[in-house]
Amino acid sequence: MAAVLMLRGSARLLYKHRKVRAASIAMVCSRAMASKTPVGFIGLGNMGNPMAKNLVKHGYPVVAYDVFPEACKEFQDSGAQVMDSPADVAERADRIITMLPSSPNAVEVYTGANGILKKVKKGSLLIDSSTIDPAVSKEIAKAVEKMGAVFMDAPVSGGVGAARAGNLTFMVGGVEQEFDAAKELLTCMGSNVIYCGEVGTGQAAKICNNMLLAISMIGTAEAMNLGIRLGLDPKLLAKILNMSSGRCWSSDTYNPVPGVMEGVPSANNYQGGFGTTLMAKDLGLAQITATNTKTPVPLGSLAHQIYRMMCAKGYALKDFSAVFQFLREEENL
Amino acid sequence: MAAVLMLRGSARLLYKHRKVRAASIAMVCSRAMASKTPVGFIGLGNMGNPMAKNLVKHGYPVVAYDVFPEACKEFQDSGAQVMDSPADVAERADRIITMLPSSPNAVEVYTGANGILKKVKKGSLLIDSSTIDPAVSKEIAKAVEKMGAVFMDAPVSGGVGAARAGNLTFMVGGVEQEFDAAKELLTCMGSNVIYCGEVGTGQAAKICNNMLLAISMIGTAEAMNLGIRLGLDPKLLAKILNMSSGRCWSSDTYNPVPGVMEGVPSANNYQGGFGTTLMAKDLGLAQITATNTKTPVPLGSLAHQIYRMMCAKGYALKDFSAVFQFLREEENL
Amino acid sequence: MAAVLMLRGSARLLYKHRKVRAASIAMVCSRAMASKTPVGFIGLGNMGNPMAKNLVKHGYPVVAYDVFPEACKEFQDSGAQVMDSPADVAERADRIITMLPSSPNAVEVYTGANGILKKVKKGSLLIDSSTIDPAVSKEIAKAVEKMGAVFMDAPVSGGVGAARAGNLTFMVGGVEQEFDAAKELLTCMGSNVIYCGEVGTGQAAKICNNMLLAISMIGTAEAMNLGIRLGLDPKLLAKILNMSSGRCWSSDTYNPVPGVMEGVPSANNYQGGFGTTLMAKDLGLAQITATNTKTPVPLGSLAHQIYRMMCAKGYALKDFSAVFQFLREEENL
Amino acid sequence: MAAVLMLRGSARLLYKHRKVRAASIAMVCSRAMASKTPVGFIGLGNMGNPMAKNLVKHGYPVVAYDVFPEACKEFQDSGAQVMDSPADVAERADRIITMLPSSPNAVEVYTGANGILKKVKKGSLLIDSSTIDPAVSKEIAKAVEKMGAVFMDAPVSGGVGAARAGNLTFMVGGVEQEFDAAKELLTCMGSNVIYCGEVGTGQAAKICNNMLLAISMIGTAEAMNLGIRLGLDPKLLAKILNMSSGRCWSSDTYNPVPGVMEGVPSANNYQGGFGTTLMAKDLGLAQITATNTKTPVPLGSLAHQIYRMMCAKGYALKDFSAVFQFLREEENL
Repeated sequence: MAAVLMLRGSARLLYKHRKVRAASIAMVCSRAMASKTPVGFIGLGNMGNPMAKNLVKHGYPVVAYDVFPEACKEFQDSGAQVMDSPADVAERADRIITMLPSSPNAVEVYTGANGILKKVKKGSLLIDSSTIDPAVSKEIAKAVEKMGAVFMDAPVSGGVGAARAGNLTFMVGGVEQEFDAAKELLTCMGSNVIYCGEVGTGQAAKICNNMLLAISMIGTAEAMNLGIRLGLDPKLLAKILNMSSGRCWSSDTYNPVPGVMEGVPSANNYQGGFGTTLMAKDLGLAQITATNTKTPVPLGSLAHQIYRMMCAKGYALKDFSAVFQFLREEENL
Repeated sequence: MAAVLMLRGSARLLYKHRKVRAASIAMVCSRAMASKTPVGFIGLGNMGNPMAKNLVKHGYPVVAYDVFPEACKEFQDSGAQVMDSPADVAERADRIITMLPSSPNAVEVYTGANGILKKVKKGSLLIDSSTIDPAVSKEIAKAVEKMGAVFMDAPVSGGVGAARAGNLTFMVGGVEQEFDAAKELLTCMGSNVIYCGEVGTGQAAKICNNMLLAISMIGTAEAMNLGIRLGLDPKLLAKILNMSSGRCWSSDTYNPVPGVMEGVPSANNYQGGFGTTLMAKDLGLAQITATNTKTPVPLGSLAHQIYRMMCAKGYALKDFSAVFQFLREEENL
Repeated sequence: MAAVLMLRGSARLLYKHRKVRAASIAMVCSRAMASKTPVGFIGLGNMGNPMAKNLVKHGYPVVAYDVFPEACKEFQDSGAQVMDSPADVAERADRIITMLPSSPNAVEVYTGANGILKKVKKGSLLIDSSTIDPAVSKEIAKAVEKMGAVFMDAPVSGGVGAARAGNLTFMVGGVEQEFDAAKELLTCMGSNVIYCGEVGTGQAAKICNNMLLAISMIGTAEAMNLGIRLGLDPKLLAKILNMSSGRCWSSDTYNPVPGVMEGVPSANNYQGGFGTTLMAKDLGLAQITATNTKTPVPLGSLAHQIYRMMCAKGYALKDFSAVFQFLREEENL
Repeated sequence: MAAVLMLRGSARLLYKHRKVRAASIAMVCSRAMASKTPVGFIGLGNMGNPMAKNLVKHGYPVVAYDVFPEACKEFQDSGAQVMDSPADVAERADRIITMLPSSPNAVEVYTGANGILKKVKKGSLLIDSSTIDPAVSKEIAKAVEKMGAVFMDAPVSGGVGAARAGNLTFMVGGVEQEFDAAKELLTCMGSNVIYCGEVGTGQAAKICNNMLLAISMIGTAEAMNLGIRLGLDPKLLAKILNMSSGRCWSSDTYNPVPGVMEGVPSANNYQGGFGTTLMAKDLGLAQITATNTKTPVPLGSLAHQIYRMMCAKGYALKDFSAVFQFLREEENL
């Protein structure tokens, strides 16, 4: 709901840019009319696979590619068409979604020897749902623009479960006139699609949210642990925080202390959820981004270090709320 | 509401302790019956003054003391009675509330040469609303107990405005059977009175909440600042955070970025609100408490240092959300 | 040498105070003349035991006490005399050295029910070699002064080995005229005896040194670890640092990387040396001291948290240079 | 001296690679024989200008380039030859030194439209003395190698004064057989030339040293400030640290407290020396490098944030030891 309300203001902006972007809008329209033409999907990993399958469910013919043959095979068996390279995908589809693990993979898939840009059609819409450095998104966008196509960054929040259920949140950056075209596809895979601004702002929004999430999760773990050692009952302390100014998503929706809430990773030995290694990766992006923009992020920076240490201490695959367990261990002489 | 619900379970506990505590309960009852007998109040500062006046408004005869004669004078002019020392207050009243700036003051007022304990009556109920080290609360409680009286710690959340309006939140630690007696008085000054557990847990709850508050406030400031530098509109970013896992009280109720919300200190040049120097004090208590219990609090510790540096850089009297301003300043060569 | 040079300026100060302190100086002289009269020693732990034995070796009759009977027994077997309480020690000796684990122990030994002050003789010289909060040292000093005796704080640097070998370093705080009297005893146990200033400055010097030590040790571990991961040979990197501005005691004398130096704990699986739990204790003192004086110590504070986490992760009894091992562990998915 | 000793082991390695690298060694020899042939120099800023002039002083004909015409003009007036682009420099000289402010500049100068690689001669020796991300050094090295030339990274330590005096320290990474050829030139500008290992290790050594330097400088400032507030005389405290385990270059050679030492920036209102903004830049590189190699650097990371905040608070152009001033400011209510 909030997401919908937030997007109202756009209509006027659209108008303002109309003349300048006339040609580009025309291309968008032709794409929109042919909405069940093939959609490309590159990157069939834990997230990409269920996302692509949701496109298929919504009636889109999907032409796909993954660097791992097994990932392609599994997807092909489910009835979709698999290509030999990103370039080949771009030859067949003028709307392509990419879902890749990191910046160098994204650069390779777009600008590599057999990359999308080798055979991309003019007017194509290329949407990257990877979580990468927004500076890299901007560079890719420039290269895409030179080929007469359109690039948007649209990283997701929500994990594998949300990918399967089709209720991811997409944070989208790019030319606003293209947002509707992107939204048409993204709503097949997510329940919230939020327009954030120019290229890179989708990444920026995700990185900022996850940095604050990491900080408040560690803060919640510290506060709960300290309170428990000072004699407070954990459930009572959680209730007090949640009716006070310490309240946050990590305390009221995803409490890291076993026994306080049900249905969260802390109730299940920190299995499932959002892995510590993924949080460490996102915090690394926040760090690099902050370094490059000379922005001080003292707590974000320390949160990064803590999740990095946790990875090295065996918590890499546990949910990131396991920081409570990491901090609570007692000294045993 | 939540606060009320949370306190239900107490009845049975009360029963369980009944025999053991018969004498003490009897004393409580005699106090309760004589509810409009004088109430002592020691510490008539920015917070104590309006609190004591709310007791007067509710019909309690107040006998008061403050170390500063002007504070006494002002209070006397409003019709209350002023004593020469804490001991004299204790001679006149068997229910006393103390509201003092720091641990050493509290120790002095209770155990000093003219302290409460010099003339305290057996069975008196002594409630300390100062924010101090819970270990000091426990020591005072022991000394009080030796004199046959009862001590509870009941620090508040909410500032001068809430003190005037009588809607503070009290977090109360001490013997549970005495909680009702304490609540009778505290509800004259606050809208939430929460029982937290044994002596010291009121302090513990407050310290933990404020530590988490400081962490999530700085985190919000960092995330908003980074997002703005990456090209995001501040209002839009706040909306995204507030519908996502980064949501916290500091982002959705007390946003530190000017222009995002109305009616908060960031909309008023960070005036009013909760001063940076007070936050630094509470974080210092968290730090000492964590050190003494060997509890790791890496982010709480860094938050303390940041608020300490802010105090030295001229932010002492600004609201603690001014950390956004502190962090956003640009490098000018 | 440096230590000796540093103490020159004292003569004039001595003169300046002469009249005021005439009585006290007279007492010192009578103590000095009777230098082989009994010396009290309280606290016969890992450090205290060898220190007391060095006094015996130098011909001083030692009357001792420890709260653990076994510690007393062992010491008695070596020919010394053991008392039943600190008070009894004070009855027999007018020069007493205390070596205790923490602030509360020191308070108890001096001011407790059977504490030194119960039977201390006027003019006695009481030297506390424990590492405690300088604020506590000052409080004890006041209580001692009230009894007409003299108190000095004289914490040590150097571990059990240095205690046995008699080459500890003592950092001494207290009235300067008493320094020579203290030095007479301390030189039996240490090779460096440094006068630091008024009471509490011995503790201050030790705390500041150890805080800087912890910071530069962790910094060395981080820099070495980063360099190794970037392809540098550890010995070569250590050499470069040691001829450059990164040089520090932790890099050139006590390098934390196995294989870089011989004869240090890192060459022996981090056994021996200065335990992580002791470093964490000293950093806790630095933290409390900094908090109480409103001094920002961001790196000192984080160093404290890191050593606290190491304690909880099984490093409590390893040498504090094991932070290299703690940080270098690799992520294993 | 240490630097010299450290390089002994190389002879055998040289032998081992002899056959493989025969051609390349031949080229080196021809270069070495013609040692007074022109040397290229690109980047005539505060550091590059005096470095290039030292080459001229040693009899090398220098052909130079800088992106700023004024910098070229000034250099030309001193008798050297100036080219129109890096490519033109490469056409004239088969040994080129580059000294540039950051990674993007280095990439542009080597691989840009008029970059060195457009006209580089086979067998040329290209030495980059910029301080940049070692990963970028490796990428440039690959591009250089493809053109049949040799690349070495050789960042410097020592500031403008050392550049003028010709006593910089160079930390060199690259193929070991080329080290002698590089050293021939670098010794004209520096007194220490240290071989660190393969390409990128020069950068790595510099980054690690400066990270440790920043950490121990802040640590020294914190320890000195805390000690002073606890009543210690700054000179005495410095002496104690310097004879103890807290000793480091920042405490014994470059003490940040005014009045402790002469001839250092702290004695001159923190003017001259190594600017805070440069330290922040190097710490940013350390941060990016650590993030990319998943290396935990908690103190390095916090040091980065502190220098970043200092830049925003008006310390950008002061010497980095001004962190003492930044931390010592007192709270004024």
